[in-house]
Amino acid sequence: MSESPLVLVQRPPTFDFMDELLSRNFPVLTTHHTSSAPLPNSLSRHASIRAVVNMAMLKLDADLLSHLPSLQLLVCTSVGTEHIDLAECKRRGIAVTNAGEAFSEDVADCAVGLLISVLRKIPAADRYVRSEKWVKFGEFQLGIKLSGKRVGILGLGSIGSFIAKRLEPFGCIISYNSTIQKQSITYPYYPDVLSLAANNEVIILCCALNDQTRHIVNREVMESLGKNGVIINVGRGGLIDEKEMVKCLVDGVIGGAGLDVFEKEPGGPEELFGLDNVVLSPHCAIATPGSLNNIAQLTLANLKAFFSNQPLISPVRLD
Amino acid sequence: MSESPLVLVQRPPTFDFMDELLSRNFPVLTTHHTSSAPLPNSLSRHASIRAVVNMAMLKLDADLLSHLPSLQLLVCTSVGTEHIDLAECKRRGIAVTNAGEAFSEDVADCAVGLLISVLRKIPAADRYVRSEKWVKFGEFQLGIKLSGKRVGILGLGSIGSFIAKRLEPFGCIISYNSTIQKQSITYPYYPDVLSLAANNEVIILCCALNDQTRHIVNREVMESLGKNGVIINVGRGGLIDEKEMVKCLVDGVIGGAGLDVFEKEPGGPEELFGLDNVVLSPHCAIATPGSLNNIAQLTLANLKAFFSNQPLISPVRLD
Repeated sequence: MSESPLVLVQRPPTFDFMDELLSRNFPVLTTHHTSSAPLPNSLSRHASIRAVVNMAMLKLDADLLSHLPSLQLLVCTSVGTEHIDLAECKRRGIAVTNAGEAFSEDVADCAVGLLISVLRKIPAADRYVRSEKWVKFGEFQLGIKLSGKRVGILGLGSIGSFIAKRLEPFGCIISYNSTIQKQSITYPYYPDVLSLAANNEVIILCCALNDQTRHIVNREVMESLGKNGVIINVGRGGLIDEKEMVKCLVDGVIGGAGLDVFEKEPGGPEELFGLDNVVLSPHCAIATPGSLNNIAQLTLANLKAFFSNQPLISPVRLD
Repeated sequence: MSESPLVLVQRPPTFDFMDELLSRNFPVLTTHHTSSAPLPNSLSRHASIRAVVNMAMLKLDADLLSHLPSLQLLVCTSVGTEHIDLAECKRRGIAVTNAGEAFSEDVADCAVGLLISVLRKIPAADRYVRSEKWVKFGEFQLGIKLSGKRVGILGLGSIGSFIAKRLEPFGCIISYNSTIQKQSITYPYYPDVLSLAANNEVIILCCALNDQTRHIVNREVMESLGKNGVIINVGRGGLIDEKEMVKCLVDGVIGGAGLDVFEKEPGGPEELFGLDNVVLSPHCAIATPGSLNNIAQLTLANLKAFFSNQPLISPVRLD
């Protein structure tokens, strides 16, 4: 094993689910993301690290990367790579991979679950029963019908496509916005998020977070979506101007929201904690054993492919 | 209007959504189901009542029906008619209608929403964020993957068929049990609920409650479903032996449940109020403005059809 490439795994303390799989195949160093030092203490180890598995959504900027002179491969276990300095990776010739489609089914399931939960007020209904309000006050408030809703999907990649496919038999009318119109897709395309919001009753966010998409859902978009409109976010918190969204939800500018992601995590805006028209989820759209197994297998496959000069399974394009 | 048939509407006090529609077309008497007298106080009115609209799930037995000597049509605004003495209706030649397909989409949506909510623990996740446990304790527990689950549907009528159609693109593997195997359906058929439970990871109850189906999900069925098994009930509380289900959920004999209906309503078993693997809903699977509009229109259409000697829109077979 002495000639095998050294792999640094940066992970939350409890995320040990791929330790054994990786250790069986590569010499592995592990750091915990709660540590103030994201790199091993021994500087001599840095020099020999040839791959990093970033499970911690740890921000890897040019400075941190400069401490890893032999780094050739950066494996991100997330779909989004907004925490990585991709330009610096390109400059240095470091290959980058992401989660590809490993989480797509689970995230799509969660998005649909959040949507039904918001419209039919499932968590609020559950609270109503558990707090015995059903007995005390009688009938629960009416929900909102999903069938027939116009649903606009922002970002029609693998997750967005799975969401669309799932919503079709509910009788939802699907349209989308993405960076470019996809010729193979027959759903109506809107060239910007404002027209997507204006023409739909629900918008579902599942695009990448980058300089072009940060706060893409701003006050104007929410006003355009309107007082019965619902936002589902399974992308990143930063896609929405969260401060404005809180105001819009509190003031009834929009009708509701189902949010798996937030600008500040862990946490979420406490102004929403008393509202029945929002459903809050602690960034767990990917969190099933099935997804974890997928990402463990994909991580190993990318490492093996790279170090045997085969094509990467889920490369990130570095333009 | 003096020759128009008198219609008695029995409804909960707040269910006034079809008052105006019906009153524009028929002379209407209204009683509230919280009243101890389900019939009008004036006995002279009884004799002239020719139709009853039962919105209150009021038990109409032979004795009560005997006070309505001119009754010709009984319009039930529910799908289930277990509260009606159908044999007595048949003997007296009283026609009966039910909700037909008025609620099918909303109930199917709710069933899928409850299933995703149980597997992905959406209400528990929502509580986790609102109670700030996410900040205090970190990552939420893992959910369970829906894609690929084997789902057995008990009762493949209009609601069951809509549920099946919705679950297909999630990659669920559908099978069913119903009174008779349906030749036009290609899903695998199990001749009894025990084999349905043994061969599936999820069972969804959407059949009628009657003498044959009362407590059809008993302890043996739940043991057969197993410790990872999930029950979704959007039919009637009485389909499940609820006392045994509570034990099975508390003891981990089954994995979870999503329940819109209970043996005692309003209420629900308080032993479940502290569990994260159950989602409780106050019998509101049908409760959207869309469904209410559907049933109002259907009620009027059945009344008009009957009193102009046209075929009923949603007749209940009286065998």
